[in-house]
Amino acid sequence: MNFKQKLADVSHNNNSLVCVGLDVDKEKMPNFLFESSKHPYLEFNKSIIDSTKDLVCAYKLNMAFYEVLGTEGFELLKKTIKHIPKDVVVILDGKRNDIGNTARKYAQTLFETLSADAITVNPYLGKDGVAPFLEYKDKCSFILCRTSNASAGDFQDLAVSETPLYQIVAKKIKEWNENDNCGAVVGATYPEELKMIRSILGDEIPILIPGIGKQGGDVEKTIKNGTNSKGKMAVINSSRSIIFAGDDEDFATVSLKKAISLRDEINKYR
Amino acid sequence: MNFKQKLADVSHNNNSLVCVGLDVDKEKMPNFLFESSKHPYLEFNKSIIDSTKDLVCAYKLNMAFYEVLGTEGFELLKKTIKHIPKDVVVILDGKRNDIGNTARKYAQTLFETLSADAITVNPYLGKDGVAPFLEYKDKCSFILCRTSNASAGDFQDLAVSETPLYQIVAKKIKEWNENDNCGAVVGATYPEELKMIRSILGDEIPILIPGIGKQGGDVEKTIKNGTNSKGKMAVINSSRSIIFAGDDEDFATVSLKKAISLRDEINKYR
Repeated sequence: MNFKQKLADVSHNNNSLVCVGLDVDKEKMPNFLFESSKHPYLEFNKSIIDSTKDLVCAYKLNMAFYEVLGTEGFELLKKTIKHIPKDVVVILDGKRNDIGNTARKYAQTLFETLSADAITVNPYLGKDGVAPFLEYKDKCSFILCRTSNASAGDFQDLAVSETPLYQIVAKKIKEWNENDNCGAVVGATYPEELKMIRSILGDEIPILIPGIGKQGGDVEKTIKNGTNSKGKMAVINSSRSIIFAGDDEDFATVSLKKAISLRDEINKYR
Repeated sequence: MNFKQKLADVSHNNNSLVCVGLDVDKEKMPNFLFESSKHPYLEFNKSIIDSTKDLVCAYKLNMAFYEVLGTEGFELLKKTIKHIPKDVVVILDGKRNDIGNTARKYAQTLFETLSADAITVNPYLGKDGVAPFLEYKDKCSFILCRTSNASAGDFQDLAVSETPLYQIVAKKIKEWNENDNCGAVVGATYPEELKMIRSILGDEIPILIPGIGKQGGDVEKTIKNGTNSKGKMAVINSSRSIIFAGDDEDFATVSLKKAISLRDEINKYR
């Protein structure tokens, strides 16, 4: 099944655009796990997945948080992905980028070895840095367009013949969508830009939207500006606000409540 | 010792600007290694390092080729780095990029866990995607400026008030160099752009230059346009042309000859 069908099905079945970011971080995880468990990271992820799997459309794993754990991190990545139900979308967020030969290796790791449904890619190298990812026709590559951070505008706001760079990237994403497998990453912290990008992309390209929660993006504006004309094709990520909401043994239940509340808030505006 | 001193010392001692890219690739490595050795990748890297270590200023390891090997790849990365002599520069080429919290994890992996002297970073997210790397004052972050691939110009050539984006990135690199630990990545396949970037960066910022060899960059133009006014501060990478030059048991000797010939060709123009 291709990515867009899988996303449509799970979004429909769980009535949810919520993506939970499984960004493991010892400093923020419940302490007791490191005393009571032999595999605290895996147990943490499994608990969060078990409690939220019927409420989300996707899980996003940011590679940095796994890479920093070394050899163990790669195993954790594999085991966590294996634990995610087959019908829920897995996004590996590595923002990878390189030229042809090398990009192909990244694509192989992410899509084949780790079985991701979707990944994130940085567009700075132009089309041939993105093309090896787009060869996987049943997968999705979310291309960074407007990032959620404060200095996103350093380059993304630069005007090229009066058009800001991020809009040119959005136009390129539409152009590169020949296999119907492109997505865009747009930060919720920039609602006006999100609106403009959705209008450039049209109805058929999914947008992965980080930046609500701790980063302060507004949910209502995100949904109104980021979904397509049917209130779909948006994947709203929340990491820390959901997974690190609880500190005690009931942490997974606390996360569940946060996920429900986010899903419902989102659905109010769809 | 900080990066720039280490680079200056090793470049002087080995009279070399050559960086050998240790991009392991089963399809291109001598076949016999996979029959005769329990650890073919590590043996390959060790042989290349042993034979070329007095002829180079740096080794560059592209993360994609290690990541694709999974758990084994991370161990290989660590063991290869451990085998590189302490006085030779280690560049980890991962083109990482993310926002503050996450970029910090990448920086920790690359600079602390893996002890890299220098890394590569993608600038698309603007200053706060690069800042966590620049906090490591004794290390160097080579920021992608003008990449070596054919479609580099898709975005990098866009004119912002008549100035192409790659030149604006070069100006930002100079501005971000407060800790004297920025570098730039510029492809040898674009010699005129290299010249312009060197003139923007001045004498004190090192440039990591991929794109000679298989990609077709001209050595003379690269040296004349890319080194500083003293014929220094350039790190000229060659991967496939050196490490995959031989197919037989004498492969390391063949690589050695290629490295000598590249070093000497470079030095002719310094």
